[in-house]
Amino acid sequence: MVTLESRPLPEPTLRRLPRYLQLARSLTPARPVVSSAYIGERLGLDAVQVRKDLQCAGLVGRPKIGFEVPKMVGTLESLLGWNNVRQAFLVGAGSLGSALLGHGRFKEAGFEIVAAFDTDPKKVGTELHGKPVLPVEKLSSLIRRMHILVGVVAVPAPAAQHVADLMCAAGIRALWNFAPVRLAVPEDVIVQDEDLLAGLATLTQKLAARLHEGTARLQKGK
Amino acid sequence: MVTLESRPLPEPTLRRLPRYLQLARSLTPARPVVSSAYIGERLGLDAVQVRKDLQCAGLVGRPKIGFEVPKMVGTLESLLGWNNVRQAFLVGAGSLGSALLGHGRFKEAGFEIVAAFDTDPKKVGTELHGKPVLPVEKLSSLIRRMHILVGVVAVPAPAAQHVADLMCAAGIRALWNFAPVRLAVPEDVIVQDEDLLAGLATLTQKLAARLHEGTARLQKGK
Repeated sequence: MVTLESRPLPEPTLRRLPRYLQLARSLTPARPVVSSAYIGERLGLDAVQVRKDLQCAGLVGRPKIGFEVPKMVGTLESLLGWNNVRQAFLVGAGSLGSALLGHGRFKEAGFEIVAAFDTDPKKVGTELHGKPVLPVEKLSSLIRRMHILVGVVAVPAPAAQHVADLMCAAGIRALWNFAPVRLAVPEDVIVQDEDLLAGLATLTQKLAARLHEGTARLQKGK
Repeated sequence: MVTLESRPLPEPTLRRLPRYLQLARSLTPARPVVSSAYIGERLGLDAVQVRKDLQCAGLVGRPKIGFEVPKMVGTLESLLGWNNVRQAFLVGAGSLGSALLGHGRFKEAGFEIVAAFDTDPKKVGTELHGKPVLPVEKLSSLIRRMHILVGVVAVPAPAAQHVADLMCAAGIRALWNFAPVRLAVPEDVIVQDEDLLAGLATLTQKLAARLHEGTARLQKGK
């Protein structure tokens, strides 16, 4: 799952890019620059091959110095779609999940729920609004494999924390939570709670106040 | 559709209460008190019957003065459920509509979507989460008959204004709007827009900022 439409990278290079990214990420900040020789040594590759691969990715090292590690991370993340905030997995293929999958305006906004996950054998294997409904057992491995960062929680309240735990452990960095529970998540995970009851409460309170006002106005004879 | 569980009012009295309410509402603020004789004359009823009916409703007039009009309006509205902010009609029985009908927590909060309306002949006549799906042609008359004050707009954007117009003309006082359009409504109607895209945008922006921060930290070598 690599998002490369405009750059025709050779397949073997593509397959090696995630290894370069992982290595670059693992380097301590004390090593801001890294040579192709060092990379090659760590990954068991020829230094010339390393330079060619990274050049394909748009990274050119400075002679006798090497590659800037932060730039390498940023470029490879973009190239591999590992900084992808536009695609999400949804868990819970009930009516709310279905409404979210079918929400036309997400696509307009450049956002896509690429798959739904559920535990119900009747739902698994079907499609909802053109998106596959997959077994929840596949959730973790697919988050990892596709580098999905955004998770949508549309399961009933009692299941929500478990789903959040699974997602966070697999690498999800942001949860859009429709379950009426406060999720406990690691510090580096963002949670956006979507509470429909809050909107409803606002509306009915305003309406009650308005009706009361009307009666009060009558009582004052205004 | 009268919500009277604890007070056993005689059926003929019940049937007359809406007429008393309508008359009381129609009285100008210049007439803060009204006699049973006047009410009887306006409605073609015996003054004794009027006093008995209003007494059943918990309204006792002061001798030689009469009934306080604002109190009469408030009491009759409560009694008849005409100040009902807890029940709503929903228009648009698609997946979002279905999700809202099936939302377990509305009921916990004392709120109920009592019926859904749609134009799709395949949906009309069915039930969704135990609630009837009725033809949109019946919307106006049922709003009037059941004194529904809250309307939920869950139709696609192009249909939303028309639905809002129908609802407001029939007496809806508060709209919970899930369509991504700004509705034009009469001044005395409250609109609560529920914009899922806003929540999503917040989440993805925070995530993008967080990812950017991570890269920036790497770049600073911290």
